[in-house]
Amino acid sequence: MSSSIGIGLRCMSKVRVHISVSLDGYIAGPNQSMENPLGEGGERLHDWVVALQAWREASGMEGGEDNASTPVVMEEYENVGAEIMGRGKFGPPSRGPWGDEPWQGWWGEDPPFHKPVFVLTHHEREPLTLSDTTFTFVTDGIQSALERAREAAGDKDVFIGGGAEVINRYLGARLVDELELHVVPILLGGGARLFEGVGPEVKLELVRVVEAPGVTHLKYSVVP
Amino acid sequence: MSSSIGIGLRCMSKVRVHISVSLDGYIAGPNQSMENPLGEGGERLHDWVVALQAWREASGMEGGEDNASTPVVMEEYENVGAEIMGRGKFGPPSRGPWGDEPWQGWWGEDPPFHKPVFVLTHHEREPLTLSDTTFTFVTDGIQSALERAREAAGDKDVFIGGGAEVINRYLGARLVDELELHVVPILLGGGARLFEGVGPEVKLELVRVVEAPGVTHLKYSVVP
Repeated sequence: MSSSIGIGLRCMSKVRVHISVSLDGYIAGPNQSMENPLGEGGERLHDWVVALQAWREASGMEGGEDNASTPVVMEEYENVGAEIMGRGKFGPPSRGPWGDEPWQGWWGEDPPFHKPVFVLTHHEREPLTLSDTTFTFVTDGIQSALERAREAAGDKDVFIGGGAEVINRYLGARLVDELELHVVPILLGGGARLFEGVGPEVKLELVRVVEAPGVTHLKYSVVP
Repeated sequence: MSSSIGIGLRCMSKVRVHISVSLDGYIAGPNQSMENPLGEGGERLHDWVVALQAWREASGMEGGEDNASTPVVMEEYENVGAEIMGRGKFGPPSRGPWGDEPWQGWWGEDPPFHKPVFVLTHHEREPLTLSDTTFTFVTDGIQSALERAREAAGDKDVFIGGGAEVINRYLGARLVDELELHVVPILLGGGARLFEGVGPEVKLELVRVVEAPGVTHLKYSVVP
């Protein structure tokens, strides 16, 4: 893909990050493991969203409530054509080579993505299709993964799904257009830090603040 | 002071922190020095407040504007009877023993505090009075400094003025009642980190959100 086509596509669609973060800046707690995929205390980062009817419905669950977070979450889900995630999000926490009976992700036979997902990894692997989600494994870096995700997304947006390392690399490379923090009033005291290694070159402007039960949504645009 | 009197006073007055913080969690930038007391890029944390008429007036300066931050700052200044600060805020950045012509602070002959200030230090020193501000140097720890500040404040509140180390120690010891973050949409990439060493034992509840030009004010109460 030539760079001029890259710029053309960028104008049509956005690269977006929406992530729950503790007040002390972590998006997962310390000691992530098979039993504790979000680290110690990390599940609490998502209490606010798990309680929402909008999230439960998108995850094939019943019940839930409707509050000031609902439109924020609806907007987050809207117009996303592809997701990029790191090995940390796809799993397993042990990482390394895939082995003979490779890990199928955390989400069972019907993952909640319903769109193309590009997984950054150091270890090659054939694409994995589960229901209507296809995971494509990308070994040649974040730029390549973004080009492929943009192509798959068409005129829709690309969602950078985490973990911290992947988000930080895209932010640091100034490839993100929009960053929304769901700030949860807890302290994790350690874990996977957002903004680690991202510096003052990245300029942000506040777009919107929404106060909701158990969370404050701060949405920023990244100044090109 | 007996502990029962200590508890009695605590019911009457609050221990408060109000601090400007970058989106990546720093209250000063990297490489603090005489020339750069707030570290590289750190001055930008205070652009929002320096622009305010309310701050300028309290600092003996003219001009300035009035916006959604004004009531937040007025409330911050209100009912404060004493301040505790660390050697990092009082200075000089070299720290260490006071020497023969000891440092008088950053603020000239009329410091903007106008109230008793307790400076945490490892090095003994006689109190320093400049205009209507007296700096008392406390060498026997944060509990002692707080007792003395409470006594000086009477039924007013005690303000923990920073730097990060002092705020983090009071937070970690669960001695803070109210914490307000003035979140500035910049990344400093390094420096003095808020919440360093403070863990999940500290529980917070959101009190209020105020969106204002160049800053978002998030006020939390600490659950006792």
